[in-house]
Amino acid sequence: MLPDDQRDRINVVLVSPRNPLNIGAAARAMANFGFRRLAVAAAYAPHWREARSAVGAPELLAEAMETETLAEAVAGCTLVVGTGTLTFRKPEQRVVRLPELGPMVLRELERGGRVAVVFGPEKHGLTRDDLSFCHLLVEIPTDARQPSMNLGQAVAVCLYELATRVGLPGKDAEVHNADKNEDFRPSVASGELELLAGVVEETMIAAGYSPASMREANRHDLRLMLRRLGPGGRDTRRILGLFRRILWRLMRISKKN
Amino acid sequence: MLPDDQRDRINVVLVSPRNPLNIGAAARAMANFGFRRLAVAAAYAPHWREARSAVGAPELLAEAMETETLAEAVAGCTLVVGTGTLTFRKPEQRVVRLPELGPMVLRELERGGRVAVVFGPEKHGLTRDDLSFCHLLVEIPTDARQPSMNLGQAVAVCLYELATRVGLPGKDAEVHNADKNEDFRPSVASGELELLAGVVEETMIAAGYSPASMREANRHDLRLMLRRLGPGGRDTRRILGLFRRILWRLMRISKKN
Repeated sequence: MLPDDQRDRINVVLVSPRNPLNIGAAARAMANFGFRRLAVAAAYAPHWREARSAVGAPELLAEAMETETLAEAVAGCTLVVGTGTLTFRKPEQRVVRLPELGPMVLRELERGGRVAVVFGPEKHGLTRDDLSFCHLLVEIPTDARQPSMNLGQAVAVCLYELATRVGLPGKDAEVHNADKNEDFRPSVASGELELLAGVVEETMIAAGYSPASMREANRHDLRLMLRRLGPGGRDTRRILGLFRRILWRLMRISKKN
Repeated sequence: MLPDDQRDRINVVLVSPRNPLNIGAAARAMANFGFRRLAVAAAYAPHWREARSAVGAPELLAEAMETETLAEAVAGCTLVVGTGTLTFRKPEQRVVRLPELGPMVLRELERGGRVAVVFGPEKHGLTRDDLSFCHLLVEIPTDARQPSMNLGQAVAVCLYELATRVGLPGKDAEVHNADKNEDFRPSVASGELELLAGVVEETMIAAGYSPASMREANRHDLRLMLRRLGPGGRDTRRILGLFRRILWRLMRISKKN
């Protein structure tokens, strides 16, 4: 079993959940497996209120963090894991099956990181934009004839896996193996990467890097690239400093003209 | 992943489920993980009808077996696994944690057996009488502060474990290890054991074995004992033949007097 101090560095994030029963079920699964940190991004207010005030709602629902965007909800997390089924059309990140997720999460916790497991809305799951905040996508291995899981059940299955598998003896060897073919190195909080992405984007615009019609696509690609690169904290600040300087210069030039 | 022919020898049995939404959620989890055989014992008819006719209900709900008793629902099964949390007061059978269940189920499937995983009603779970039909109790390792899981989520977690863990490479070694400290050897269909238990009980009564007030307790102990003994099919028939003979003699004697 995962020790409490590590479990408290795993956040569950629900993006725009619609059904109050599902919100309650997700919270109950968290309580069942001893997780406490819930964030809800872009909640539909009436349903969120209803879920929170339901009879028997676990305490962690009252203490949940509410944010307008997924970016804010995962700002403090160093490893952001998006969930879904085989329906990821063209994954732009590494995809792992849930039974193999444990070692990666454990490694991140052991180096002092904070992990977010992100669940999308019931109908369509996480959007491409949501997924661009994720370092890694996890797939629950479901039957191809009925791949899509109920939200509360998906949360239960993921947390069961993390609570019971991550700390099991014999997992160290797997962590070691997983290291070999690592292609992501999360290390910096998602919020810091977003700050950097914002400044780089402003710089692109100020520099007339590409037409306005491309901005959305550029922002998306930039976000993914920063997560692939996974710079350390010091490098992140260095790059940020550089871009701030460039931006300041660009703005001064444009003011002069 | 578990191959289809083995998955079809795992039955999910719901005992007196109350909430139609939970019945639907259990069926959906089955469909998600590719299980098809559902039985519902002692269902509350209106809720069962409602669950079956719900929009989007998986096909397997329409094909589910309906029985009056748990005994009938598991009659064809050679390994009956009862589910619950840490709340089993004084377990009378072996208890295993869900992450360790796989090898036992796999061994039973590989020797051609049929497995039932039994879930009790939402409020109180399986009764002591229900549990007496079980060879083995499985415990989902939940947090002591909130041990009781929602029915649909418990089904999802158990089926996830069975679907994804049972057939994983490297499990053979564990099967081997599990064999060493086996203290149950299920091998005969639950219905055959019940038939035997019935004849033994009649014999006890005919022999004036114990006062009528003890019959309930005797039946319970007998059922558990037969499952602990786990006689093979041939032995079961042999014992049955013996008791039938004894019973016939006893009845003839009592008629004469």
